[in-house]
Amino acid sequence: MYLTIKKNKKKKKASILIIGNEILSGRTQDLNVSFLANWLNLKCGISVNEVRVIPDIEKIIIKNIRELSRTYKYVFTTGGIGPTHDDITAKSISKAFKVKYEYHKKAYSILLKYYGETKFNDGRKKMAMMPKGSSLIKNPSSAAPGFKIKNVLCLPGVPSILKSMIDNCLTYLTKGSKVLSYSINLMTVESNIAKQLGKIQKKYSKNVDIGSYPFFRLGAIGVSIVSRSTKKNKLKSCTDEIKKMVREKNIKAFKIK
Amino acid sequence: MYLTIKKNKKKKKASILIIGNEILSGRTQDLNVSFLANWLNLKCGISVNEVRVIPDIEKIIIKNIRELSRTYKYVFTTGGIGPTHDDITAKSISKAFKVKYEYHKKAYSILLKYYGETKFNDGRKKMAMMPKGSSLIKNPSSAAPGFKIKNVLCLPGVPSILKSMIDNCLTYLTKGSKVLSYSINLMTVESNIAKQLGKIQKKYSKNVDIGSYPFFRLGAIGVSIVSRSTKKNKLKSCTDEIKKMVREKNIKAFKIK
Repeated sequence: MYLTIKKNKKKKKASILIIGNEILSGRTQDLNVSFLANWLNLKCGISVNEVRVIPDIEKIIIKNIRELSRTYKYVFTTGGIGPTHDDITAKSISKAFKVKYEYHKKAYSILLKYYGETKFNDGRKKMAMMPKGSSLIKNPSSAAPGFKIKNVLCLPGVPSILKSMIDNCLTYLTKGSKVLSYSINLMTVESNIAKQLGKIQKKYSKNVDIGSYPFFRLGAIGVSIVSRSTKKNKLKSCTDEIKKMVREKNIKAFKIK
Repeated sequence: MYLTIKKNKKKKKASILIIGNEILSGRTQDLNVSFLANWLNLKCGISVNEVRVIPDIEKIIIKNIRELSRTYKYVFTTGGIGPTHDDITAKSISKAFKVKYEYHKKAYSILLKYYGETKFNDGRKKMAMMPKGSSLIKNPSSAAPGFKIKNVLCLPGVPSILKSMIDNCLTYLTKGSKVLSYSINLMTVESNIAKQLGKIQKKYSKNVDIGSYPFFRLGAIGVSIVSRSTKKNKLKSCTDEIKKMVREKNIKAFKIK
């Protein structure tokens, strides 16, 4: 059911807002950005153009929600929708959009059913408080739903729960063109290919993004060249030119995916 | 030598600007934010209050450098200072601060010495191009230096190289008060302690930040409670109250660090 979403040729842009002191303090390694970015790119043809990490402070959340929701087609937030005092995402977003912060009836009944009357305490009830007008993003692993209000989709911070919910966001998204990519690993250093690669990028500047990423693995030094495009034929001509350059320079290479 | 930096009682604030399409596309998992945040917190008493991840696009880099350098005491950038076409950090920062983008004499001579006349090609020479007035951040692992211009410190994106250079930033930083932290793992769920924890946070709102982070590990469900403060005595009273609450509720607990 969730896969019957509209296709749209124009590439859609998204931003991610990570709300959480634990990422800013360095205590927790964020894993949601790479997961969300891959999912959006590969499954939805939606590129992520900005990520911000901010603390659990109401006025900062409000400012960022307003800025990002004005700038991008979609905003994904992670974190701050649990039961404790530092979970203030839903309340802050209500203020950002100047709508009431209130019990969402459906969320309340989902949580009541999940916990039962006697265990449905104040902390758990708080997870049913949302901006007025929100639509739910169902949570198959721990019941407490995320929500969508205007162009903002709010997800939890725990990576395993976020992953279990992500496909339930599809119903709220318009698909863009799929981004195709071609990666090749070269056993050389960046500066040995910088000039030629720069020329190829210039030639294909309208349709292909070429990235160059040095790596050090298992004692070997190399460079990954990643070309990305929504146009299959342009991607092919561009990577053909890269491969020609690699042959001419007699560089050892292997395709990685 | 680098450790002879000034101590300052006021807590300093920093932001991190990650420049790189590879993080936004989801191809590469960022590791620099947690490393930098820990290093700044623990070694320098400097808190990170915002992180942004942006693409390798000149006008976006300029906009973000201007905004962040106005707002924060320090801005750390990672990425975009290598030899290829997509390495545009130094040029963009020159434009952001309206200073010349030119060869840094010392950087040029370091790189010339490292590569030797014959191997010092255009790509490598580019790594000596910096905003006029920059100070170098020496790189013991691969020679190409980072740089500091005004309150912006520019580091490479490769985590191992960044780590090897980081202590060379100390000379440019004023130390803040050390942030102390106390963590305890409770074998319970967040909603069971949300109310009491909220009350304790309210009581210590001026001096202690309490974070609550659910975990699922080795089949167990639990919550890590992390209290952070620059004031030792306030941290102690606050954590004593948390421990009292834990005893009263008969929750199994263990200290993690």
